[in-house]
Amino acid sequence: MEQFGTVAILGVGLIGGSIGLALRSRGLAREVVGIGRHAGSIDEAVQRGAIDRGTTELRQGIASADVVVVCTPVDRVAEDVRLCAGVAGPDVLITDAGSSKRQIVDLVERQPQSSGVFVGAHPVAGSEKKGVAHARGDLFEGRPCVLTPTSSTPPDRLSRARRFWSSLGCRIVEMTPAEHDEILAYTSHLPHAVAGALASAVPADWLPLAAGAFRDCTRVAAADTALWTAIFRENRGALLKALDSLRERLASFQFALMTDDEDAIRRWWDEARLRRERFERLPGNPGVVSGQSPARNLP
Amino acid sequence: MEQFGTVAILGVGLIGGSIGLALRSRGLAREVVGIGRHAGSIDEAVQRGAIDRGTTELRQGIASADVVVVCTPVDRVAEDVRLCAGVAGPDVLITDAGSSKRQIVDLVERQPQSSGVFVGAHPVAGSEKKGVAHARGDLFEGRPCVLTPTSSTPPDRLSRARRFWSSLGCRIVEMTPAEHDEILAYTSHLPHAVAGALASAVPADWLPLAAGAFRDCTRVAAADTALWTAIFRENRGALLKALDSLRERLASFQFALMTDDEDAIRRWWDEARLRRERFERLPGNPGVVSGQSPARNLP
Repeated sequence: MEQFGTVAILGVGLIGGSIGLALRSRGLAREVVGIGRHAGSIDEAVQRGAIDRGTTELRQGIASADVVVVCTPVDRVAEDVRLCAGVAGPDVLITDAGSSKRQIVDLVERQPQSSGVFVGAHPVAGSEKKGVAHARGDLFEGRPCVLTPTSSTPPDRLSRARRFWSSLGCRIVEMTPAEHDEILAYTSHLPHAVAGALASAVPADWLPLAAGAFRDCTRVAAADTALWTAIFRENRGALLKALDSLRERLASFQFALMTDDEDAIRRWWDEARLRRERFERLPGNPGVVSGQSPARNLP
Repeated sequence: MEQFGTVAILGVGLIGGSIGLALRSRGLAREVVGIGRHAGSIDEAVQRGAIDRGTTELRQGIASADVVVVCTPVDRVAEDVRLCAGVAGPDVLITDAGSSKRQIVDLVERQPQSSGVFVGAHPVAGSEKKGVAHARGDLFEGRPCVLTPTSSTPPDRLSRARRFWSSLGCRIVEMTPAEHDEILAYTSHLPHAVAGALASAVPADWLPLAAGAFRDCTRVAAADTALWTAIFRENRGALLKALDSLRERLASFQFALMTDDEDAIRRWWDEARLRRERFERLPGNPGVVSGQSPARNLP
């Protein structure tokens, strides 16, 4: 226990706060230090029990850390890793929790001091909610965490990163930063884009007649604008490709409708239904939860 | 109490079964009779307490009914209304629960015997699940029920239909069949089409890295193929228009991404976010449920 020594978390919001709660409830760190830009959110994180203590001074928070987890928005991660690497001791492991990886890893690897201590990570878990108030110690249980080591990643840092993320409850998956971004463009960024498109496509006056399908499909459209603008931009190449696939699927549905081709509509829906059923059957996938209480009395 | 006399429900699945449960738990009917094509589902409906008794013989089930609720798939409703009107007594009220209205009401109004006893209805509630096993007595509580009377609808039948659906817990909304279909194309049929497109756009091998956004957005893609093929076809004109709006929204997002226009991406997302927040604030709307337990540890 306490195997990770002092863990510093830069950015104590939903993700950073959940990491702190998981570390503390499992007794994995000697001390969990939170670093934030606002004293208010640091206080809130201490009150929630997500960190032992906090500071708004980067140097003070990082200097004695054995592990640093950078949980800032994706467009700030690389620069934050650089700042932390400049302050931390030589044995530090720095990892992150960003939803895009290629651009972050590219930038970090241009700085030898950062590159030698860094392992890119993306725990595939979260919420459309923001802030430490919504943090949960079990956020990562059973969820995948994608690590994106490269040929420059030191093997000892990689094994420490594997131990760190799996000790929070994650299943470790490893791939290149580019593979990560291509896959997550489809599995996460595209569903967010679709949620946004659907939310604004329905005229506001008609919303009282929207129900469960609209509600669930647009849930993540409530997510923070700045966070998601940054993720979309960092992964725009792969996301554009995913959007093309989606528009192709829509176009073939539209053609089947236009021609009132019953067999084609049926086949199109069956393909979607089987893919969704395959998702629900995945081991450890909490997809089955969704049909129950949340769906309650809504179509 | 028992104000509706004998209520016959044609088609005892999720919707028909839920109507039966609501009537019986509230003591609104002297007797609830279920009519189905398969003895097995009739037995199951009796066991679940959704009906007092059941039959596979239309005539036997309908002859003594004061109210008939047709809960068959949308492409069978008009014909079933005709059959019921031919068998039932002259004072009967026939209503339905179909998700599309224009085509059903048009067909029913071509038959004077049906037209004089019929009020088109759509309780906006349901689930991607099928069958009486998933029926719930509170399915309609607080949900809108759209009635689509026309100039041919007898006023006394319309008031009875209002009382009937509101006694199940519904808020009554009235509009023309065409208005209903135009609005529901956006608020229900489009979200289903989007769920289907997204489900099949994500390569099967990548599903293990899909999480909450994908899970919730594709929930209704698990719905029954025959039911939804019929709904899509009945409302294909309005749905094609709704799909065009969605594709426009996606196209403007794609353009903003292509040109890496940060302001445009931000504005696009903000518009979606505000629309979604407006939906969540609607009185009586259980949209707020969705961010909690179901969203658990998933982004």
